Amino acid sequence: MEVYLDNNATTMVDPLVLEEMKPFFCDIYGNPNSLHKFGSGTHPKMIEAFHYLYEGINAKDEDDIIITGNATESNNTVLKGIWIDKILNGNKNHIITSEVEHPSITAVCKFLETQGVEVTYLKVDNDGILEAKNVQEAIKENTALVSIMWANNETGKIFPIKEIGQICRDNKIAFHTDATQAIGKISVDVQDCNIDYLTFSAHKFHGPKGVGGLYVRKTCELSPLLHGGEQMGGHRAGTVDVACMVGMGLAMKLATSANALAFEHDHVEKLRDCLENAILQIPETIIIGGKNNRTPNTTLISIRGVEGESMLWDLNQKGIGASTGSACASEDLEANPVMNAFGSDSELAHTGIRLSLSRFNTKEQIDYTIDVIKNAVARLRKISSSYASAPENHVSQL
Amino acid sequence: MEVYLDNNATTMVDPLVLEEMKPFFCDIYGNPNSLHKFGSGTHPKMIEAFHYLYEGINAKDEDDIIITGNATESNNTVLKGIWIDKILNGNKNHIITSEVEHPSITAVCKFLETQGVEVTYLKVDNDGILEAKNVQEAIKENTALVSIMWANNETGKIFPIKEIGQICRDNKIAFHTDATQAIGKISVDVQDCNIDYLTFSAHKFHGPKGVGGLYVRKTCELSPLLHGGEQMGGHRAGTVDVACMVGMGLAMKLATSANALAFEHDHVEKLRDCLENAILQIPETIIIGGKNNRTPNTTLISIRGVEGESMLWDLNQKGIGASTGSACASEDLEANPVMNAFGSDSELAHTGIRLSLSRFNTKEQIDYTIDVIKNAVARLRKISSSYASAPENHVSQL
Repeated sequence: MEVYLDNNATTMVDPLVLEEMKPFFCDIYGNPNSLHKFGSGTHPKMIEAFHYLYEGINAKDEDDIIITGNATESNNTVLKGIWIDKILNGNKNHIITSEVEHPSITAVCKFLETQGVEVTYLKVDNDGILEAKNVQEAIKENTALVSIMWANNETGKIFPIKEIGQICRDNKIAFHTDATQAIGKISVDVQDCNIDYLTFSAHKFHGPKGVGGLYVRKTCELSPLLHGGEQMGGHRAGTVDVACMVGMGLAMKLATSANALAFEHDHVEKLRDCLENAILQIPETIIIGGKNNRTPNTTLISIRGVEGESMLWDLNQKGIGASTGSACASEDLEANPVMNAFGSDSELAHTGIRLSLSRFNTKEQIDYTIDVIKNAVARLRKISSSYASAPENHVSQL
Repeated sequence: MEVYLDNNATTMVDPLVLEEMKPFFCDIYGNPNSLHKFGSGTHPKMIEAFHYLYEGINAKDEDDIIITGNATESNNTVLKGIWIDKILNGNKNHIITSEVEHPSITAVCKFLETQGVEVTYLKVDNDGILEAKNVQEAIKENTALVSIMWANNETGKIFPIKEIGQICRDNKIAFHTDATQAIGKISVDVQDCNIDYLTFSAHKFHGPKGVGGLYVRKTCELSPLLHGGEQMGGHRAGTVDVACMVGMGLAMKLATSANALAFEHDHVEKLRDCLENAILQIPETIIIGGKNNRTPNTTLISIRGVEGESMLWDLNQKGIGASTGSACASEDLEANPVMNAFGSDSELAHTGIRLSLSRFNTKEQIDYTIDVIKNAVARLRKISSSYASAPENHVSQL
């Protein structure tokens, strides 16, 4: 059996989405900026896609949604745009973020620090989130931007975005949220939450790779990251990838409708809980960050004495795809940085397994996965020297 | 009949390329950075694609080819990377380019000027190109980069890249070329021409939109435009668009093989010449920049007394897609900036029609197009007040 449980890394393109994209490769292939029908023939479906994108996050017509190449580009656009506009060419010099953001936020912040920008990395508590008041306390005279993710990619933990949005609005500070892991899992509403900039990525909600979006509230100016042609009203140059953009639109519709979000809650969350509860029956297993306030599809679980990499290997042998954490940081086999942020010691940080489901997972797949994991834990604990020698240290480490 | 003659704006995806891409949407859909087989299953075709990309431009194994979202991103990466590394954090402050570059070069340069960078925009001569010695003369102590396109998107004129490359090498100055309009039309060899950075875009050679590349010579460091995950060795963060990248690889192979380039010369160029010569039989028509040193697929032609936009309209009514110039600058209906650069007056600059062919065009399509253009010229000249009143001014204007 094949079971894909790494949907926070990327998702399968919904076959309906692929069908929507197909005409734009070899048939309606013109450049949307061209004046002839090969170009203008792309417009109806692009307009429809924009409609779905606006609706999916409850953007107003007068706001902008910029089509980008991925969430990384969206995040870089916001942070470097703010840097250019408000720091390099303004009088601000401070950015507030959290220590558990995706690398496409953290690495930009590290770069900006080399350019003299001050960055506050807010710590998360044992539950893996932070309180809105921490943001309030970190705000200074020269704060240019607050950037806090909507939901964490590794734990699924949901941040108090509405409260943070209100604080930023009250303090007249621009607020960006990376909603890459929230769209299609929980309700995302830019108006309700006072969002100024919001990042999303199609391939996290069954759209294609290579396309993402950046919501920009009407009143918020931002220098482009990609200068060039007049595409996206001058906010993001480069020929629009029509096929992917149209696919992203439908994917957004399919992922964010009331029915879709209800299905996440009624079906996906139940499967996740079923899987998680079965694993928790194994002694010395814990959910990193606990069960509250999570996206319905994600669990990050620590199994004492079992190296995450070894578990992945066993799962992979049985056709199951899972992760030890972010795919964007996984090639170097370092300890999970989010678990490090929790204050875990190095050994525990190596025991995390992230299982992230999607609407395409079935009960049969989950039952099969439970069996495989139980057998793998038994096998791996038997050969683990650290587990055999020091079992009593586990619980105290978190 | 449908005739697409706007291949410098974008091209149809080769059906073979689409077939190559298809498995990566709903079947082999993992994140290539993931450790399981859903991810690693993407690797064989990605490796194959890299091989085709390296071969297509004669890159060495130790050099880098970074997969980007489009040529605009590649161009922004080079110019802003140089800005960060050698200007903002170095002791250089000067960039040399030409006045007929694509907007994704020119607009970045305009932005950099607002940040205090000095930019020299080399003029082109009546043939629409510049001589390598002009580059030599413009070099200063603090020159950080020379960026000159390989072939112009509007005229198809080919620049003396090998000579410019030698001058830059001799002067130890980094050399970037935007080869977006050269790949698949003429031979492009980064080693032979001493290129340090080279931009290309899949959708200009029958690959998909939304993916491009940036060649970076091994010895050339460059700060990334997209900070984040460790993809592309840290040079370009963001999940790779596997389908598009694999498609670009095959498209590169299909476009740059010896057979393909011979077909451009034997078939595409003959069709272009046939079309061009038929139009030139109409009185008071000229090839902007003349016939020498052009890519085989492009002609930019001025038809006295015929507004480019009006001609496009007539062509579009008959199923023919053409352009007045760059699609990236076409929405605002301003006069063709390249024709302005030639010193044309405003009226003449509005008469340009760009016809750009591809290997998918046929003799029947060209014969049909010739008929349509002849009829359109007759109709439009009849209703043109400026043509009726002052025909004698035409030739002297160039």
